[in-house]
Amino acid sequence: MARWVYGFGGGKADGTGAMRDLLGGKGANLADMASLGLPVPPGFTITTEVCTHYYANGRQFPAELKSQVEAALAEIGRVAGKAFGDAADPLLVSVRSGARASMPGMMDTVLNLGLNDAARVAIAEATGDARFAADSHRRFIQMYSDVVLGIERHEFEDILDHEKARRGAAEDVDLDAAALEATIARYKAHVIEATGKPFPEDPREQLWGAVGAVFSSWMNARAITYRKLNSIPEAWGTAVNVQAMVFGNRGDDSATGVAFTRNPSTGQRAIYGEFLVNAQGEDVVAGIRTPQNVTEAARIAAGATAPSLETVMPAAFARLRDTMALLERHYRDMQDIEFTIERGKLWMLQTRNGKRTAAAAVRIAVEMAREGLISREDAVARIEPASLDQLLHPTVDPAAKRDVMATGLPASPGAACGAIVFSADDAESAARAGRRVVLVRVETSPEDIHGMHAAEGILTTRGGMTSHAAVVARGMGKPCICGAGGIRVDAAAKTMVAGDMTLREGDVVTLDGSSGEVLVGAATLRRPELTGEFGELMGWADSARRMKVRANAETPADAKAARGFGAEGIGLCRTEHMFFDADRILAMREMILADDEAGRAAALAKILPMQRADFAELFTIMAGLPVTIRLLDPPLHEFLPQRDAEIAEVAKALGASEERVRRRVAELHEFNPMLGFRGARIPVRYPEIADMQARAIFEGALDAAARTGAPVEAEVMVPLVLAAAELEAVKARIDAAADAVARERGERPRYTVGAMIELPRAALRAGEISRAAAFFSFGTNDLTQTTLGLSRDDSGSFLPTYVAKGLLPADPFVTIDAEGVGELVRIGAERARAARPGVKLGICGEHGGDPASIAFVDGVGLDYVSCSPFRVPIARLAAAQASLKRKPASSA
Amino acid sequence: MARWVYGFGGGKADGTGAMRDLLGGKGANLADMASLGLPVPPGFTITTEVCTHYYANGRQFPAELKSQVEAALAEIGRVAGKAFGDAADPLLVSVRSGARASMPGMMDTVLNLGLNDAARVAIAEATGDARFAADSHRRFIQMYSDVVLGIERHEFEDILDHEKARRGAAEDVDLDAAALEATIARYKAHVIEATGKPFPEDPREQLWGAVGAVFSSWMNARAITYRKLNSIPEAWGTAVNVQAMVFGNRGDDSATGVAFTRNPSTGQRAIYGEFLVNAQGEDVVAGIRTPQNVTEAARIAAGATAPSLETVMPAAFARLRDTMALLERHYRDMQDIEFTIERGKLWMLQTRNGKRTAAAAVRIAVEMAREGLISREDAVARIEPASLDQLLHPTVDPAAKRDVMATGLPASPGAACGAIVFSADDAESAARAGRRVVLVRVETSPEDIHGMHAAEGILTTRGGMTSHAAVVARGMGKPCICGAGGIRVDAAAKTMVAGDMTLREGDVVTLDGSSGEVLVGAATLRRPELTGEFGELMGWADSARRMKVRANAETPADAKAARGFGAEGIGLCRTEHMFFDADRILAMREMILADDEAGRAAALAKILPMQRADFAELFTIMAGLPVTIRLLDPPLHEFLPQRDAEIAEVAKALGASEERVRRRVAELHEFNPMLGFRGARIPVRYPEIADMQARAIFEGALDAAARTGAPVEAEVMVPLVLAAAELEAVKARIDAAADAVARERGERPRYTVGAMIELPRAALRAGEISRAAAFFSFGTNDLTQTTLGLSRDDSGSFLPTYVAKGLLPADPFVTIDAEGVGELVRIGAERARAARPGVKLGICGEHGGDPASIAFVDGVGLDYVSCSPFRVPIARLAAAQASLKRKPASSA
Repeated sequence: MARWVYGFGGGKADGTGAMRDLLGGKGANLADMASLGLPVPPGFTITTEVCTHYYANGRQFPAELKSQVEAALAEIGRVAGKAFGDAADPLLVSVRSGARASMPGMMDTVLNLGLNDAARVAIAEATGDARFAADSHRRFIQMYSDVVLGIERHEFEDILDHEKARRGAAEDVDLDAAALEATIARYKAHVIEATGKPFPEDPREQLWGAVGAVFSSWMNARAITYRKLNSIPEAWGTAVNVQAMVFGNRGDDSATGVAFTRNPSTGQRAIYGEFLVNAQGEDVVAGIRTPQNVTEAARIAAGATAPSLETVMPAAFARLRDTMALLERHYRDMQDIEFTIERGKLWMLQTRNGKRTAAAAVRIAVEMAREGLISREDAVARIEPASLDQLLHPTVDPAAKRDVMATGLPASPGAACGAIVFSADDAESAARAGRRVVLVRVETSPEDIHGMHAAEGILTTRGGMTSHAAVVARGMGKPCICGAGGIRVDAAAKTMVAGDMTLREGDVVTLDGSSGEVLVGAATLRRPELTGEFGELMGWADSARRMKVRANAETPADAKAARGFGAEGIGLCRTEHMFFDADRILAMREMILADDEAGRAAALAKILPMQRADFAELFTIMAGLPVTIRLLDPPLHEFLPQRDAEIAEVAKALGASEERVRRRVAELHEFNPMLGFRGARIPVRYPEIADMQARAIFEGALDAAARTGAPVEAEVMVPLVLAAAELEAVKARIDAAADAVARERGERPRYTVGAMIELPRAALRAGEISRAAAFFSFGTNDLTQTTLGLSRDDSGSFLPTYVAKGLLPADPFVTIDAEGVGELVRIGAERARAARPGVKLGICGEHGGDPASIAFVDGVGLDYVSCSPFRVPIARLAAAQASLKRKPASSA
Repeated sequence: MARWVYGFGGGKADGTGAMRDLLGGKGANLADMASLGLPVPPGFTITTEVCTHYYANGRQFPAELKSQVEAALAEIGRVAGKAFGDAADPLLVSVRSGARASMPGMMDTVLNLGLNDAARVAIAEATGDARFAADSHRRFIQMYSDVVLGIERHEFEDILDHEKARRGAAEDVDLDAAALEATIARYKAHVIEATGKPFPEDPREQLWGAVGAVFSSWMNARAITYRKLNSIPEAWGTAVNVQAMVFGNRGDDSATGVAFTRNPSTGQRAIYGEFLVNAQGEDVVAGIRTPQNVTEAARIAAGATAPSLETVMPAAFARLRDTMALLERHYRDMQDIEFTIERGKLWMLQTRNGKRTAAAAVRIAVEMAREGLISREDAVARIEPASLDQLLHPTVDPAAKRDVMATGLPASPGAACGAIVFSADDAESAARAGRRVVLVRVETSPEDIHGMHAAEGILTTRGGMTSHAAVVARGMGKPCICGAGGIRVDAAAKTMVAGDMTLREGDVVTLDGSSGEVLVGAATLRRPELTGEFGELMGWADSARRMKVRANAETPADAKAARGFGAEGIGLCRTEHMFFDADRILAMREMILADDEAGRAAALAKILPMQRADFAELFTIMAGLPVTIRLLDPPLHEFLPQRDAEIAEVAKALGASEERVRRRVAELHEFNPMLGFRGARIPVRYPEIADMQARAIFEGALDAAARTGAPVEAEVMVPLVLAAAELEAVKARIDAAADAVARERGERPRYTVGAMIELPRAALRAGEISRAAAFFSFGTNDLTQTTLGLSRDDSGSFLPTYVAKGLLPADPFVTIDAEGVGELVRIGAERARAARPGVKLGICGEHGGDPASIAFVDGVGLDYVSCSPFRVPIARLAAAQASLKRKPASSA
């Protein structure tokens, strides 16, 4: 008989921590904690296979499930000394989802299940606390109705508010048992009204309803969105955890809280958590009451007045501290735990590897490696390369003028600047239109995820450091300020008010997620430096990786930034980018529009000194490192004058009529410029352009070498190569230019010539082409366009449909299409190496900064990647992880 | 010691007919003829290896050559009974080029070499014919100066004309020995004037000058052009043939001529030739004197008055006839021979396989197979598939009104219509501008080749059936009329006059190359039928070939033409082509411009009945044969309205404002439409379009099956497939449409779904894609564009440079790029077959009608090719030859 249910509690468990796939993360860790002898309320896990079965069989459970659940319930009862559904001493349970990967806020939870009128009376009698019993019952009806029956929570909140108003009560806690019992009656009446059926009184009916709701919630819109954003397969399914209730709402000697073994925002090695006295779990996470600090140190640091757990319940705190230390050692990672204290006794409800900011991730990994808890390789492997992006995000310049509107909790670090919007939908549509926005909400809920994703940063006026907004924002690496109580938000009016200042939708603010300050207007932001733990981690990554990392850069600023971020050279200098400046484009246009060689020669003579100076500066900045300079590549008409004034200007410079210039512009029009007159085709037709560029490169290289004393090794790259004979023809002109410069200067420039592989044909003919190429750079942007027949500029009308429907595994412009483009890169690399051992192979373009693509090209054996300067650290880390993945895992 | 020289003559030869590569075509055949005991003047061949050596060593001859030539000269002298350079009885020789492949008119020839003043006197004495001696000497100086010294022929013609005028002589023959001797003196003076050096008197100096000139002429512009047009490698080199002179100009018992064993224009089995009494070889070919017929039958047929060779020299004629019959049997092909009759004795100067029109080629091959001279396979293998094009060229409709301006010789059959031009350069530039032209010349020379290539047809006013114009035009398959003496051409004034009619450049004429009539204006032309020998040959080809041949067709006219030409199905029906008609494009535009599904549905409902009727008609015409229908493919904006009136019309039909239509048109604009929203992307985004088309196909198929009684097997092809999942998604819609039609009609349509492979990625992923595809059609037009990153529309500005410089082996849009596109086709075919044995594989597009491409895809093992209807016979023949080439050669 198939086993669908695994029990745990009482110091033992049927399952183990290794059974994550079957039990889900929460279930596996509960089994683990039970086996470790930690105080876990007894319970059982219904496996993920039941979820799979449920969806594979028209939402039916397997036949044997019922009897296995009954047996497991009996076992809980045995350990807890109570029986589920028992009239005299009823066992209450929680029902929680538990997927393989943590999905915070995505799945639904029901507490206090098993309660009905009879049980309430029994519990009131057994505990001597009628208010507790009624409060638990009221919470249960509300939560169950929301999650299982589909009645919105606010409908019950309205009833509760009405009851409070009737009785002149300010807070929930001001309602006594009688008031709560009256509320329960109203709740039940509302359920009949809303669903036409009475609220289920039978505990077993409640249980199966809740289990079914958990499984159903696996397919709700929030869960689907989260899985899509986090690449979690739908097939994994979720488990369901049924566990004996323990009560944090049994009075002032009871509490409930969440805590991290280290600070999830900064990574500091100290317990970081929050709790509420006399409350149940969802009160903390929901952010409705502002929670208290777990440790005294944290309380003092935050300047909070409410006492810490360490102070109010020292014994329970000590037990919690020891348990957390044990768990961190056991899992060798920072833990995020949930606990409840029932009448002074600590119960552990959950442990999992904690989400953290990138900064915290780096610090934790580095410190754990220093502590000997993990190896340096583990530390390198643990950081999600893409998350470094947030460390490379700007911070508010300390020297900037700060017009502080309000201050909240620094819930997720980094600075964000944007126009304020007041709904997730508005955030999403603004972002789609290319506008940067800050999402402002009283508090966020899972329904806001898409808007948080679209926003630059998030600001809430309620909730703490572990509120939904804070947790999700940190996970996303977005700056976030929570609980900025000094701000009043009117979402309907689309305004936010602090003191006498009112901001409206579209007004710009800057969030300083590191200080918690909300600044009016756009503050000056600053790029971070790679120092401290980050620098140390990057050093370990550099030791681990095989591939070199270069940057794509052509301006001095970008080249300097690239060096600062650890680039080991320039992998792509796009010479045409040097000519879009207003004072240079005229010469470029003259060259393009000249209709004979003499006209081109005159324009080229103007361009030569500019390019020579550009290259000399670039070589000087990159002294000692290789620099790859690509000859003019784009369709020439990108430079063409369009407006009448521009045409007149060019006509004057060329000494031609405007009509003639206009005719030449029309001649140069192309139907498919991507497949047109560009790349190597330009020097094949007009060799004098390559002559000039080669000369500028070689003269600039000699100038820079003279200036720095370091010899310059220039790499001249011919773009869009199609055939070996074509490259040979262009190379002959480059070599001739080098000979000419050598004769004139009395010194021979040092250089190699290489090919940019952007066409399927070039990848297939790599063997022959490599005979004239000392290096290849795979230009996978264009190779993607040609291999997939997909214009990047035009794909917006259909490519999203392909990704959404799963017709392509990912956006091929973000992550390399391994099956198509990737195979051509592999073929090209193999053939080039076979024909010319030692040929240097790299990749440039967007994929050079994408971790998945970097892992792919490491597997193909390329020598280097080149990416935008700010992605260099990401590429360094991703390259290290790719190297480590090929080796057997090491341990500390 | 390397052997550089091979002798022949006196009934034996050092070389053999098999040594073509070494001796050149002429040399090998001279050796052959000598070995056969035919009357060949003794001589020797300097091998092609000397040419190779000459160019590889800075135009120096190998060291041993001189002594080998001297020995060979001595041997000629021994056989001829004379000595080269002997004062008393000098041996004269001809020096002729002889490349491996025949290159008529491309290489230079020198006759009468060895003549000088002393030799002239000696010959005059020996022959008793002072005029003959002087005439030979005069010719020699003129020819040698032209070929070796670079003095243009017309300069000597001027001197000769001056001499004739001075002496009141009408023709050359009216000049006596004294006059010719005076002319020789003037010639020599002119040589000193032109070159600063006297004409060489030393026979050995003359010989080496001529040998050097022949080798040099291998690299002259005419030769280079001819090689390029005929794909002859430069590395082959040419041989030089030195041969004892025989004289057709020894008086009225002497003659020279050329003849074919069968009629080169019609293929008729009868000697066809021309000769001139008392003349040397070049007089016939130059077309200056109008020659006489060789046979009496031909004279009668031509209505000529000048007597035939058969009549005037019956003995020599009989010897000639027997020799020609022997040669045809020996070579098993129609021979083109040159002969000279010296004082009644026949000498054979050359034999080679004769050039012929395509019609003649077909008739000769079929008749030789019937005669048992060659096998049917040989007959099939002998026809150049591309040459069939001229048989498929139109002829003048017999019912057309014929406004005959003049009549000439029907030198190359077929009809051509175009604007007249009077120079080769004008012809070329007009053709480049897309205009159809007829080249009109007094006579043509090798310098006109490029213009003849560019023209639709050629008209000359001088020269016979074997004149330069006639020979070259037949080789090119161009209609040609020669010797239209009734027309006077003024090339300077760009007019041609016949009687009182004057036509100017740009006026249109029609040439009927089959009747020799020049018609004023554009006559109605007609496509030929495939009957008689052509039909028989195609039948043999069909027996020999492995691949099927289909046609690309969508109109009923094209489909009928395709069946007529033997297509075995439709390989590509482009459904969008059915919608460019004025009465249909509006519905198409409505569909494209609708901005919601309802709008599209309304337009699609209008289109459905049109498509259903189209398909039903196509299936009916093609009853019993497979028909592949491609779903809508091109970028939708090809259908967009551009002019205001069109926009207004669409707006009205859609019930939308013009402004909205205009905005939607702008939205649909693409930067690179070739890589944009087209192909399978259309049904992925708008599945309802595929639904409609699939329904129309299935309903049309059932309608046609009901009408014809033959079940229809529809092949539904999805264009521009990118990924397996994409094809599966589109196929699911097609299958659903089939299910719906089956339910409604109570009968299930028979169909398969396939993929058009046009993207490199699709070729690489062919294995997965074939799981949903019963067939693949490689769309090599688009596959060329994507694999090479080459827009067909835009490549005109640089692709010709690539082909001219040899950077690409050929225009990849004409002949498949075997190394790039071809490799992807090979990969795609292999992977598809591995994943789905029995998957049907074909190719459609221009390459499907190109013989070289057909041979390539036969090698890859594709099942069929599909091409335009008028190229179907070419494809059938090319496919047969590809099959035969893979088998061992058979013999009759």
